Amino acid sequence: MDRVFGYIAARQEEFVDRLRALCRRPSIAAQGIGLAETAAHVAALMREAGIPSRVIPVEGGAPVVYGAARGTGSRTLLFYNHYDVQPPDPLEEWASDPFAAEIRDGKLYARGAADNKGNLVARICAVEAMLRELGELPVTVRFIVEGEEEIGSVTLPRFVREHPDLVAADACIWESGYRDLQENVVLALGVKGICYVELEATGANRDAHSSVATIVPNPAWRLVWALATLKDRHERILIHGFYDDVLEPTEEEMAQLRRIAAQRDDDAQRRDYGLDRFLLGLSGVELLKRHLFQPTCTICGIASGYSGPGSKTVLPRRAVAKVDFRLVPNQRADDIFEKVQAHLAQHGFADLAVRALGNENPARTPMSAEIVKIVAESARRVYGREPLVFPSMAGTGPMHVLTAPAAIPTVGTGVGYAHSNNHAPNENIRIEDFVDGIKHIAMILHLFGGGR
Amino acid sequence: MDRVFGYIAARQEEFVDRLRALCRRPSIAAQGIGLAETAAHVAALMREAGIPSRVIPVEGGAPVVYGAARGTGSRTLLFYNHYDVQPPDPLEEWASDPFAAEIRDGKLYARGAADNKGNLVARICAVEAMLRELGELPVTVRFIVEGEEEIGSVTLPRFVREHPDLVAADACIWESGYRDLQENVVLALGVKGICYVELEATGANRDAHSSVATIVPNPAWRLVWALATLKDRHERILIHGFYDDVLEPTEEEMAQLRRIAAQRDDDAQRRDYGLDRFLLGLSGVELLKRHLFQPTCTICGIASGYSGPGSKTVLPRRAVAKVDFRLVPNQRADDIFEKVQAHLAQHGFADLAVRALGNENPARTPMSAEIVKIVAESARRVYGREPLVFPSMAGTGPMHVLTAPAAIPTVGTGVGYAHSNNHAPNENIRIEDFVDGIKHIAMILHLFGGGR
Repeated sequence: MDRVFGYIAARQEEFVDRLRALCRRPSIAAQGIGLAETAAHVAALMREAGIPSRVIPVEGGAPVVYGAARGTGSRTLLFYNHYDVQPPDPLEEWASDPFAAEIRDGKLYARGAADNKGNLVARICAVEAMLRELGELPVTVRFIVEGEEEIGSVTLPRFVREHPDLVAADACIWESGYRDLQENVVLALGVKGICYVELEATGANRDAHSSVATIVPNPAWRLVWALATLKDRHERILIHGFYDDVLEPTEEEMAQLRRIAAQRDDDAQRRDYGLDRFLLGLSGVELLKRHLFQPTCTICGIASGYSGPGSKTVLPRRAVAKVDFRLVPNQRADDIFEKVQAHLAQHGFADLAVRALGNENPARTPMSAEIVKIVAESARRVYGREPLVFPSMAGTGPMHVLTAPAAIPTVGTGVGYAHSNNHAPNENIRIEDFVDGIKHIAMILHLFGGGR
Repeated sequence: MDRVFGYIAARQEEFVDRLRALCRRPSIAAQGIGLAETAAHVAALMREAGIPSRVIPVEGGAPVVYGAARGTGSRTLLFYNHYDVQPPDPLEEWASDPFAAEIRDGKLYARGAADNKGNLVARICAVEAMLRELGELPVTVRFIVEGEEEIGSVTLPRFVREHPDLVAADACIWESGYRDLQENVVLALGVKGICYVELEATGANRDAHSSVATIVPNPAWRLVWALATLKDRHERILIHGFYDDVLEPTEEEMAQLRRIAAQRDDDAQRRDYGLDRFLLGLSGVELLKRHLFQPTCTICGIASGYSGPGSKTVLPRRAVAKVDFRLVPNQRADDIFEKVQAHLAQHGFADLAVRALGNENPARTPMSAEIVKIVAESARRVYGREPLVFPSMAGTGPMHVLTAPAAIPTVGTGVGYAHSNNHAPNENIRIEDFVDGIKHIAMILHLFGGGR
């Protein structure tokens, strides 16, 4: 691999320039900006690297970029990434234009630098280095690069149903990973699912003067009472059957949580949020266990009536809440949605409208999967330290859509770090992490292909 | 009184012009617009009518217009009115400029026409008619016209404390009254009080990604749980001691409620709000009793996190609710505020900030007071029908501030009607009601002064 690493070192500046060019293309799924152009750009980047590629249209959605290069070995490794980014707002908090891709102090600042263009370009560059320096790949690689991850991968299920052959693989490298506050290399083996619902209560046909609150129903109260039946003050979710399919961590996963807890500084994270204590006063292994293995029920938003300065004596006509359930294996988003509906009806809130606004299933790869050992060993060799393997992320992604049909074991790794500011102003990666990430992917290809 | 009524009939157009001129002056307390100018205008109107007047500055607030004319009899009647108006928004829903005072189909359209300039001018004109036609007044009259009613009469308590002599009277005519959908002349003997509070829960130092809802406290949940302890789904307010000082209606008041219920069409009001049923399925006397004699606890507004279109997976840093308690005799606003604070502390919500944003005590005059009989008899003579005497309004006003210190019996009557649109676009009064209102006040002065 020394030759491959030499190639990477020699072309480091060129690789960074490729990433900057891609970051200069706004590709904002939520606003439908620049998606087709960016897809074409990604396909061209792959071809430049020696990876045959094409842009595949998806009915009603952003196109998917598919790339594939045959290897000498029998195995196939799938890379999942996305070329779309979050909107850059609030613009005024950026120190430089979010699409200028400026480099300062060894860091590349751009919307999408960490999430997810840096990872995508690192992977393409790694394949190029192997191909150019060795003349062949030890394994077949496939790239699936979608353009709707930031809006919930709306049409990815359709793509996977229509092209099962294009996502077939022996293992999958998920979109991202990062180095934490203590510079641990964090790998992750799963994602949570999500069931995002909007609840709406309605009352009179108009906002009324609050003096009629004696006799006119108040939808804000209906909504508050309904929400209060969903979860109690001890954070127990009260929906019948909600926890039925929740998998407890295995012995192996618990052992891993203890290893992670020993490496992590809860207090740093707690102080970063400005909190006196974490929820329920948890810390250490119990905090991690809850964070990674427990589902949630979260009010993401609630609005009714007057919320400006001072007072207004109004009886609102309407009240809306957005509630996000994060799900763990083996919960299913459609089942949870039905249980929420049934719960509200059973508790006398059939008058509330319940709308599904997001729906993804959880996914998790066992600690014992071979690809886990290979990605970890590659990290040891490239980063020179023991990586931290998280049994799951707390976040959500379309892992289930892509990897569940063929039960593909999956590991997330990537070029972010603790202050990458994903989804926030001044998103950035460290150039050094980007280069290490290229090497890491090359080493994974090497070991997964049977190299030593 | 025929001569007085003749004077009024002869000068009807001039009186309407006076009202239009006053309505053309924007005087918006919430925005501090035109208050001093309008106060001067009102004082001049009084002088023009033969009522000595002056504008009295109030430290930190809008000036009060004070007018007084001596009568031959020993008694004093106090008129309470206000020259400020609600903001005219939403402007686009007005058929004519809210400060143009246009007349269409026998109605005068203007912000303030009904609330409260029409009533004020009618009273001034009534006094003028008595003075000019009879050469004297049978009772002394005092006018207190404040400029902050629409923002909660903020400095009126200070004015009353500093000028107790100016508000001394044997009876008081409150600012307003109206003719209902069935053209009943509605008089009212009281107002509810109010205790308006803002509750705020705070969590982390920033909005967070909702994936950390496992471990980071959610102020939206804290607020929902806290609110749910205030009132149950049967509309029972759960604050300890909340109902302790609530007066039940007297036998006389209950008899009056039965008379009102026989005159009223609940269904028309219900349909107007677009409701299948009133709260708790009430109707008739029970509906009225609850409406006029029960306190409320109303969520006027609640806001936290994301409430735009679609979904956003955010864990909010802050949640705020505005809650309005309407109070009945003998509840006291400051006592209720303390009970709300104590309730939240006792129920484990000492972390919530509780701010008082409004504070007025309830007031109610007994049905048996002489001024009630006089105003009712005057209505019979002028309108030719039996008025509907409401033991109280459901709304709030500074009646307690003005009339409680000297226990002045008080009745509300005025020139509005069922579609006057107070606080709404296209506020208006019928010219005919305005003229009848002038006569009604003149008759009250006549009878209160011992006339027959």
